[in-house]
Amino acid sequence: MDNMPSSIVRLIKELQQIPYLASKNLYRVVSHFLDHEPAKVKQLCMALIEVKDKLKKCVICCAWQEKEQDCYYCASSKRNRSIICVLETWQDLVALEKAGGFQGLYHVLGGAICPLDGIGPEDLSIDALLERITSETKEIILAMNQTPEGEATAAYIANKLKNKTIVISCLARGVPVGATLESMDRLTVYKALAERRTY
Amino acid sequence: MDNMPSSIVRLIKELQQIPYLASKNLYRVVSHFLDHEPAKVKQLCMALIEVKDKLKKCVICCAWQEKEQDCYYCASSKRNRSIICVLETWQDLVALEKAGGFQGLYHVLGGAICPLDGIGPEDLSIDALLERITSETKEIILAMNQTPEGEATAAYIANKLKNKTIVISCLARGVPVGATLESMDRLTVYKALAERRTY
Repeated sequence: MDNMPSSIVRLIKELQQIPYLASKNLYRVVSHFLDHEPAKVKQLCMALIEVKDKLKKCVICCAWQEKEQDCYYCASSKRNRSIICVLETWQDLVALEKAGGFQGLYHVLGGAICPLDGIGPEDLSIDALLERITSETKEIILAMNQTPEGEATAAYIANKLKNKTIVISCLARGVPVGATLESMDRLTVYKALAERRTY
Repeated sequence: MDNMPSSIVRLIKELQQIPYLASKNLYRVVSHFLDHEPAKVKQLCMALIEVKDKLKKCVICCAWQEKEQDCYYCASSKRNRSIICVLETWQDLVALEKAGGFQGLYHVLGGAICPLDGIGPEDLSIDALLERITSETKEIILAMNQTPEGEATAAYIANKLKNKTIVISCLARGVPVGATLESMDRLTVYKALAERRTY
């Protein structure tokens, strides 16, 4: 890469750190920025810096919130304070909010237990979850991802909650809407059958 | 999205314009920046702004070059000035340089002829290519992509050059290194057979 302008090499190094940007596409993205008007590039930078300046994690639910406002979820009087939906990440919260239909509170763990990556229960906001449970709390929904790590995390939290008189639930497993049985993996079909419900 | 902090909405709008960043991954990328140290985010912004400040297109070959230096390719005394390799984009130039083995000059067209997208020959640097051909020029390599647009562009340029006493060549077509015949599409196998060479 000795024949590449040094400013491009620096930009590529920075872009490499963005997740889900395949290294194959890096040069196309650089090309996109080079072709872009300087004003547009500055606008992106402003948006990036603003997001860092204005947001912080809510001290209760750990979702991102505006520094100068109360948390949209925790401080809302419209939400059902007796149900807490526990999620791995903020993106999962966005997906659940987009789906609609949930009016309770959230709790973002900040990941899942994964010994191979050195992530233990103490690295997640599990203690904060246990602390925020009050007599008002009636149900905890363990909405982790359907991965070994997500299931291990759900099992760990369920175990911590077993002495409390709270309903512990989890998301339904099965065939996604719009999917054919043929295209599903064996385990999903097996679980959809095992966890079938009355029509 | 009324429940999303406005600074996140703004950042998502900016990120949506980056090509090859699937909309499915946008929230993960936002999350990445939110988790990142502010200093790292500023570093990315600096790299973006620097690239816009310091680079310009070479007036001869249209490749990106440092404003304050001569073009790495056109101004080099080590390169063979009798061969010009014509490419669609700067990314294609990077791919060719990475492959190594080419020591001639380049010419970046800035795209390919595509009537459906409203891109005609006048939108590409074809005139600049025709102008830079001198008595020194012995060969033009038409290294367009193997797409209908790329082939149409190559045919257009070949037609413009037909009265000149220059060798016009194109890249070899065939089965990529490491690929099996079985996994190739019919047309590639057909062309690899039709354009076979002596062993």
